[in-house]
Amino acid sequence: MARIVMKFGGTSMAGIERIRNVAARVKREVDAGNQVAVVVSAMAGETDRLVGFCREASSLYDAKEYDVVVSAGEQITSGLLAIALQAAGCKARSWLGWQLPINTSDAHGSARIGEIDTAALDASLADGVVAVIPGFQGVADGQRVTTLGRGGSDTSAVAMAAAMKADRCDIYTDVDGVYTTDPRIVPRARKLSKVTYEEMLELASVGAKVLQTRSVGLAMKENVRVRVLSSFEDGDTNDGHRGTLIVGEEEIDDMERQLITGIAHDKNEAKITLTQVSDRPGSVAAIFAPLADAGINVDMIVQNVAHSTGSTDVTFTVPAADLARSLDVLDKAKDAIGYATIVHDTRVAKVSVVGVGMRSHAGVASTMFTTLGERGINIQAIATSEIKVSVLIEEDYTELAVRVLHTAYGLDAEDAA
Amino acid sequence: MARIVMKFGGTSMAGIERIRNVAARVKREVDAGNQVAVVVSAMAGETDRLVGFCREASSLYDAKEYDVVVSAGEQITSGLLAIALQAAGCKARSWLGWQLPINTSDAHGSARIGEIDTAALDASLADGVVAVIPGFQGVADGQRVTTLGRGGSDTSAVAMAAAMKADRCDIYTDVDGVYTTDPRIVPRARKLSKVTYEEMLELASVGAKVLQTRSVGLAMKENVRVRVLSSFEDGDTNDGHRGTLIVGEEEIDDMERQLITGIAHDKNEAKITLTQVSDRPGSVAAIFAPLADAGINVDMIVQNVAHSTGSTDVTFTVPAADLARSLDVLDKAKDAIGYATIVHDTRVAKVSVVGVGMRSHAGVASTMFTTLGERGINIQAIATSEIKVSVLIEEDYTELAVRVLHTAYGLDAEDAA
Repeated sequence: MARIVMKFGGTSMAGIERIRNVAARVKREVDAGNQVAVVVSAMAGETDRLVGFCREASSLYDAKEYDVVVSAGEQITSGLLAIALQAAGCKARSWLGWQLPINTSDAHGSARIGEIDTAALDASLADGVVAVIPGFQGVADGQRVTTLGRGGSDTSAVAMAAAMKADRCDIYTDVDGVYTTDPRIVPRARKLSKVTYEEMLELASVGAKVLQTRSVGLAMKENVRVRVLSSFEDGDTNDGHRGTLIVGEEEIDDMERQLITGIAHDKNEAKITLTQVSDRPGSVAAIFAPLADAGINVDMIVQNVAHSTGSTDVTFTVPAADLARSLDVLDKAKDAIGYATIVHDTRVAKVSVVGVGMRSHAGVASTMFTTLGERGINIQAIATSEIKVSVLIEEDYTELAVRVLHTAYGLDAEDAA
Repeated sequence: MARIVMKFGGTSMAGIERIRNVAARVKREVDAGNQVAVVVSAMAGETDRLVGFCREASSLYDAKEYDVVVSAGEQITSGLLAIALQAAGCKARSWLGWQLPINTSDAHGSARIGEIDTAALDASLADGVVAVIPGFQGVADGQRVTTLGRGGSDTSAVAMAAAMKADRCDIYTDVDGVYTTDPRIVPRARKLSKVTYEEMLELASVGAKVLQTRSVGLAMKENVRVRVLSSFEDGDTNDGHRGTLIVGEEEIDDMERQLITGIAHDKNEAKITLTQVSDRPGSVAAIFAPLADAGINVDMIVQNVAHSTGSTDVTFTVPAADLARSLDVLDKAKDAIGYATIVHDTRVAKVSVVGVGMRSHAGVASTMFTTLGERGINIQAIATSEIKVSVLIEEDYTELAVRVLHTAYGLDAEDAA
């Protein structure tokens, strides 16, 4: 007997027919003798509908009331899945965020999960009752409904798995696992059978949108074995070849280890260059402090060699969605910073190679620069971490860059065409 | 300063534009210095959508989970109205059933309201915060979400008014009050400015569907002053001429009192006749006991004069929706009852004259029978109470009967065309 958490996204919950399929899938795990908690998203499109209502009611809506409204989507699907499970012959009940309770901070709209009380849940699971838990929601101080922010259901599932000491947290989604890169760009991309938390974090944060980044960070912290797999694919879920397992580095043995695990890309960045910034102590701080105060996440930073005039150009990237606000902040801080002009460009993309293997191998970055250079792809900025090298390039070259890097690092599947 | 409860139905909450109108109406009461609690229904059509999901998921759905699903409709509108009120400049917050809490029985799907804890609410109202309360929902034992049954939001509003010791409970609906009869049938019908609880109960239960019957019974028990008025009509809500006030008999003075308050009709009845029932002690009980056991509400009963053969015909009415089930019950009990045949007819209507004034006046029934007889309308059954006389007639004559009775009892408005 194992304890498992299964999480189903909005596409899997879109309509009663699909909810019935989810129930059948859950029943298979119950019939195999497992204790099961299921975490569900709202029906696809429902959260957007509810968020739209809030925005229409007021552009400055109260986050407490927003949470009351949008949490209803998962409340509905959790009740419906409990009904469908019972119809399939499984004992089941829903547990709303306030009922378990799933305690969270009171940061409404983007609350953080705290302690989850599993006393009542444990007793219910021991009785063979499947627990159906709405993702994305919790309760602050036992009083008000909270939500975790968009995509929060993955985090709910991992947090439940940690609290329940589950053997496994299976995230059912519309892809069948994590790939070496986007298969729409590289048909010879391979599905990874295992990936480390750190790699997944880098792959997720640079654009491989399979799992919410926060949920991966939590899984790493709590050491939860997460598996990503398709809800539209049949087969034995205990087959090690299904989906992708996300685990600690120690669980990946040397034979399985690759130098590079995957190539990610992200077109949602914008590049900003401030020209002729005076080359004196504190001038760089004067740029980034007001952006940080505005909650804008600055990513890649390049400071060019100083001009002979004693000034320098500073280039950095921000999320494209924050570009207008960033320009506004920088315009207001112009006197404090001291620069000549602002140049910005949204036609850029970040391409990253990720792999824990690069810790012990030199030459990864050099291979990247050579490979891109041979194709005439100009590198506008570079950022590195222990397990990642990212470059900023012109957006039009994104797919070309991903393809040539995928081949250069030996990631192409052998059996594909 | 007064304390008032305002209740808005699904038509008034259908979409953000209408919710904004509701907010404006609530704000007027707040600006007049009142403490206000607002009870809301789900958006028109939403409860049907959610009930449909439950039925699709399983024909035998778990009422506990049904309550989780369908209560979401009012949760959504209560959050949205709180947002709209804040946007209009009113302090406001939503209170879900489990938050106040509104304690109910654990009869899921048709729970009865018990004690409502108003300690936190009172403090919030005293701070000038408008309380927005989802109708139709409560909580059993502080654990599971309950709902009150369809139309339960009227009952929620009256129960809140009683618990809060509100001065008034204003039920906003899509009609502007209670009329002497259905104005679509009798254009000269008059709006009543006051009606007693008892009269309203009789009018509601015989088909004047302005207020849920349970809510009127509760208002009578708790002595809550209820006013029915239109949410689509502007004007001073403290104008005594707006809407219809539902109050105790002692609040209606002699000058206002009419012999007959209104004429109601109901086409949702079915007539059943059992022929040649043996005329012996216990035979009538053998008919009605199994129907009662099946939860079928028998209304008008007529036992014809015994045949010379020692048998009699028994005629009664049941809700048309329960006809098939009633026939099934009676068929199974045929041996125990002992009858020859069952005859049924859904092409019947019940027409009732209602008024507390008839307590002290004879001749009301006689006027009814004479009036209908003059028009050749055959009476198939008669039932009377202290303040009501009902007759069962052929359905095709319904409108004619209502019109001639309205004139006969002097209810026609003088100024109408």
